[in-house]
Amino acid sequence: MRATVIHGPNDIRIEEVPDPVVRRPTDAVVRVVNACICGSDLWAYRGVAAREAGQRIGHEFLGIVEEVGSEVTGFTRGDFVVAPFVWSDGTCDFCREGLHTSCPEGGFWGEVGSDGGQGEAVRVPFADGTLVKLPREAAGEEKLLPGLLALSDVMSTGHHAAVAAKVRPGATVAVVGDGAVGLCGVLAAQRLGAGRIIALGRHEQRTAIARRFGATDVVAERGEAAIEAVKELTGGRGAHAVLEAVGTEESIRTAISIARDGGTVGYVGVPHGGSAGVDIAQMFNRNVALAGGVAPARAYIPELLPDVLSGAIDPGLVFDRTVGLAGVPDGYRAMHDRSALKVRIAF
Amino acid sequence: MRATVIHGPNDIRIEEVPDPVVRRPTDAVVRVVNACICGSDLWAYRGVAAREAGQRIGHEFLGIVEEVGSEVTGFTRGDFVVAPFVWSDGTCDFCREGLHTSCPEGGFWGEVGSDGGQGEAVRVPFADGTLVKLPREAAGEEKLLPGLLALSDVMSTGHHAAVAAKVRPGATVAVVGDGAVGLCGVLAAQRLGAGRIIALGRHEQRTAIARRFGATDVVAERGEAAIEAVKELTGGRGAHAVLEAVGTEESIRTAISIARDGGTVGYVGVPHGGSAGVDIAQMFNRNVALAGGVAPARAYIPELLPDVLSGAIDPGLVFDRTVGLAGVPDGYRAMHDRSALKVRIAF
Repeated sequence: MRATVIHGPNDIRIEEVPDPVVRRPTDAVVRVVNACICGSDLWAYRGVAAREAGQRIGHEFLGIVEEVGSEVTGFTRGDFVVAPFVWSDGTCDFCREGLHTSCPEGGFWGEVGSDGGQGEAVRVPFADGTLVKLPREAAGEEKLLPGLLALSDVMSTGHHAAVAAKVRPGATVAVVGDGAVGLCGVLAAQRLGAGRIIALGRHEQRTAIARRFGATDVVAERGEAAIEAVKELTGGRGAHAVLEAVGTEESIRTAISIARDGGTVGYVGVPHGGSAGVDIAQMFNRNVALAGGVAPARAYIPELLPDVLSGAIDPGLVFDRTVGLAGVPDGYRAMHDRSALKVRIAF
Repeated sequence: MRATVIHGPNDIRIEEVPDPVVRRPTDAVVRVVNACICGSDLWAYRGVAAREAGQRIGHEFLGIVEEVGSEVTGFTRGDFVVAPFVWSDGTCDFCREGLHTSCPEGGFWGEVGSDGGQGEAVRVPFADGTLVKLPREAAGEEKLLPGLLALSDVMSTGHHAAVAAKVRPGATVAVVGDGAVGLCGVLAAQRLGAGRIIALGRHEQRTAIARRFGATDVVAERGEAAIEAVKELTGGRGAHAVLEAVGTEESIRTAISIARDGGTVGYVGVPHGGSAGVDIAQMFNRNVALAGGVAPARAYIPELLPDVLSGAIDPGLVFDRTVGLAGVPDGYRAMHDRSALKVRIAF
């Protein structure tokens, strides 16, 4: 089969690789229908996150079950499924508590020795613990696929930020970052009943999506000017809940600074700036909490899925380009130079 | 009257100062019965926290109302009261939400222009919003006074750490720091139903109190060795809730490292080491949250008071020395050289 392989910075190739097979009785093989490129893949693309030459890449996909191991009980050939961005055994304490990302048996698609999501098929470890079944007829509804695909990571991650930040009905929420996760954070906050949603971002196409997702205000400034703007919008107080979806030192500093006293920053941007943005003295004096981390998407998909199927939310709007597998290297370039927000791969 | 005044590092004096009077109609004047010296006062004593020469000091006290302003409705001359370590107006949004420490009208005893708690009497701004009434007969029960005095700060602060860290019935809790706040954190965790409480500390007199307060395990190691010890006690997992009651870079690093994945560090130690101890990448990967800050004692005293009055908890055990006002400079020295844990001042 063919799959996306990373050989080094700026070196993404489509190559012939061995077909995946069931190796352990808990495995399944999934034929990929849709995958996508994540903002976090760009850290590898840019050489900031280390990868071995020849490693697979991509961690978001949905598809059709092609084969299952002898111990898989929840799925059968032909099932339509979505995969969260990590696999997990589904039986350990952490999985049962809903923190699947801490499963000791878990792993990340594309890590050495595993398949990546940006390929024609994927061997899925612990299929029963990992995959979530979708209605079979949805596989044929082209309009639904982007939204279902978004459950794999960006929508679940935006929701994690909102949950971690304790978004409550009527709350004033601020979202730092207008990437796909930030936009999904806006949507998640709206879904949880936020009374006001301030989106921080300066790319007009993106903030237009933020408004469709429920943002009531957009702040285009950055740094100190952004902090001032949010304070002005909130009577000097800041937001009850702040969703941080970037992960840089500056974005974390901004997020903490625009939180209302007693508020919480839900952070889901992979931290790339160390802790220098964490002003702990400010947090202490104002009782601002910092919560979040890598999102246990597996725990959230069952809750979010009905709203995607019903059309109550459409996180698929974050995809603004669709390519075939051959177009994936172009897709990376487009996201790198920001001419695309998020690229979907249709097989 | 006489009061404690700080003139510089290691220079604590007892001096004659003007008698406090009602200046605003919302003021009260309280004749102090008991006060005490706080670990955080030592930061000023050591010159680490700046003070103007001649500033008052002390922020924990209980006493008898001597005079009230014309707008004070909740108190009258002769009432027995305890003061939380900040004053607050009791009417703003933050006070109504229970975050009295963020009251815009609030302030800290001993700040420039205000009275400190370590004096014969105190002018109390916003008496209705600040003070909490105690049973009048309790003023005569010498055995009760230390526990009631502890509500002013250390017990409320330990409780804040436990609440921020989300201590739940049955939870495994770790407490970093064996000062008076850490010990009260143990007591608060026990009161909230923790199943196991691991106290980190190496002063035997203090860890003996921790055991009386409910600690099931004591870890005397520090740094990496402490992290290993807690991991070993918890099957490699760490604690659901970690209470951080020191505030140094090392203690915050330890607290984050010994939290179980998905757990929360409730931090109440005044941060003195910047954010270098906050390992945000570790927090992210393991979904460890950081919450807490300066404790809104005013919000907690009504909840904790009945348990002190009934004897269900006795946080007063953290006091291991009692002095008169003339003995306060000696009390600072004793706490500084760790020959005393916490010094009570009886007038």
